[in-house]
Amino acid sequence: MRAFITGGAGFIGSSVADQLLSDGHEVIVWDNFSTGQERFLEKALISPACQLVRGDNLEVKALTQAMSGCDIVFHFGANADVRFGLHHPERDLQQNTLATFGVLEAVRANGIKRIAFSSTGSVYGEAETIPTPEDAPFPVQTSLYGASKLACEGLIAAYCEGFGLEGYIFRFVSILGERYTHGHVFDFYKQLQEHPGHLDVLGDGRQRKSYLHIGDCVRAMLHAVESGSARDMKHRVQIYNLGTNDYCEVKDSIGWICARLGLQPELRFKGGDRGWVGDNPFIFLDTAKIRALGWAPKLTIREGVERTVDWLAANPWIFDART
Amino acid sequence: MRAFITGGAGFIGSSVADQLLSDGHEVIVWDNFSTGQERFLEKALISPACQLVRGDNLEVKALTQAMSGCDIVFHFGANADVRFGLHHPERDLQQNTLATFGVLEAVRANGIKRIAFSSTGSVYGEAETIPTPEDAPFPVQTSLYGASKLACEGLIAAYCEGFGLEGYIFRFVSILGERYTHGHVFDFYKQLQEHPGHLDVLGDGRQRKSYLHIGDCVRAMLHAVESGSARDMKHRVQIYNLGTNDYCEVKDSIGWICARLGLQPELRFKGGDRGWVGDNPFIFLDTAKIRALGWAPKLTIREGVERTVDWLAANPWIFDART
Repeated sequence: MRAFITGGAGFIGSSVADQLLSDGHEVIVWDNFSTGQERFLEKALISPACQLVRGDNLEVKALTQAMSGCDIVFHFGANADVRFGLHHPERDLQQNTLATFGVLEAVRANGIKRIAFSSTGSVYGEAETIPTPEDAPFPVQTSLYGASKLACEGLIAAYCEGFGLEGYIFRFVSILGERYTHGHVFDFYKQLQEHPGHLDVLGDGRQRKSYLHIGDCVRAMLHAVESGSARDMKHRVQIYNLGTNDYCEVKDSIGWICARLGLQPELRFKGGDRGWVGDNPFIFLDTAKIRALGWAPKLTIREGVERTVDWLAANPWIFDART
Repeated sequence: MRAFITGGAGFIGSSVADQLLSDGHEVIVWDNFSTGQERFLEKALISPACQLVRGDNLEVKALTQAMSGCDIVFHFGANADVRFGLHHPERDLQQNTLATFGVLEAVRANGIKRIAFSSTGSVYGEAETIPTPEDAPFPVQTSLYGASKLACEGLIAAYCEGFGLEGYIFRFVSILGERYTHGHVFDFYKQLQEHPGHLDVLGDGRQRKSYLHIGDCVRAMLHAVESGSARDMKHRVQIYNLGTNDYCEVKDSIGWICARLGLQPELRFKGGDRGWVGDNPFIFLDTAKIRALGWAPKLTIREGVERTVDWLAANPWIFDART
């Protein structure tokens, strides 16, 4: 199989690239390096089966050329800056919605028939059904990020229906682990490097989060794609929640991080029940659908957090990188 | 109240303009006349309270200037060519998704706090719950048109949440009546003018459709907006299905049209259970939510179809207009 990965130098993309190469596939990594990291590709690019092409999803002509001869596209390139949508509302539109349209047009022009996409549990807005299944009540969007990912899902589903593509959409909880560069654990670790004696925490620390380790996330996506579950179904797009069957409070993860680092900082809570407008106090997904395909996570949330801390400790360069 | 109407020279927009003027409000009609009709504004423009500004939703600077001083925006400007999305996939993206983003940015720049939007029952894809309520199971999109309208809904909801707007989103069944220019009744009438002896029908004529008369549609939207139901709610956007409590088969409407015209054409069915890829064989919406606000339709589907035929008969110019 020859796979094309947009955002292939990012956290998720480079991890999928490594796994596909390890499984004997060919990989073309496509990335504009706005947040992707060359160092995430050090292992992949040792393989002669891996090719790196620099480019942006909005450059549809170059994207179409680069995708030539591929069997499947993993579309992970996105604006992953979830928090600051209201500061620049056009960013999610351009880098998520319009970019996904460009990717779909390139897929169609090349006659490629399979696409996998990283969506988010944020599309459920403030879900009332928890854990939230894929067919939860039609939600109201609460963030520009979630709205843009839902727009991408809609485009992909309509292309699958209209042009006979086979699509796999994955709605993630927060992913962490090796190469993780955004989110609570990253922010807390960084703060504790700068001032080990105290930690500023958005909200009240009671926000519940269900994290999934990157290794489990990658295995889930490849498992679903290999199952061919979207082939010859009523809908030629299949949507899967990805997460663990568990959740923690931000306070718990702070405890695990501090224990791993041997620190006992003063915790300074900023108050309120959420970190920013559009942040959801609790995303906890029902993963029965992907589990029914035979996948299950191997790591607990605590193990995922600890591995993340260990990776950040071993890779201090990431705090100076543009992520 | 000073209302701004995008697509104000269209079927829905011009009808809302007439009603608002009749209710004593000021109206600014904004239209690029790609499908809008000057003749639809003949009545409105007699009023000194109505102002026409020509422009496109993608020209955000001009749009922002034109919107100055308004209290509410009715955003109806859209690509309404539902059938041919697959022939030009970029059209729904540009004229619906991107245009709505432009409208929202103009709304925000002007400090306007209320927006109403015409969405569609197509966002439910192939609904399994019929009649379909607003909180039906999270659907899979089946058309580029539906996907683009859902993208617009998401943007509007995220702006309402993030910037404190008050939003009203209306998911329509097919609307017909005076000034109707697209859809089954239009196509059938046109064919019968050209060849009264036979009628070509896409699908098998058994497609079920729930039509709503434009007068009932306009009353419903203004009723919801005036109720202020989106003020101080959990969600500052309220979503309402609009339709009748009834449906008909395409065959039924053919019978009513032919009876009205005194014709008995040979019916030539083209086969299959739908008219085009992404057409939904049955959109029938649960309208309990808007009814709970005190609205109910005044006309039956048959009366709506008959009024449409009468209007088409009295306005033969519409068949030569660019719609």
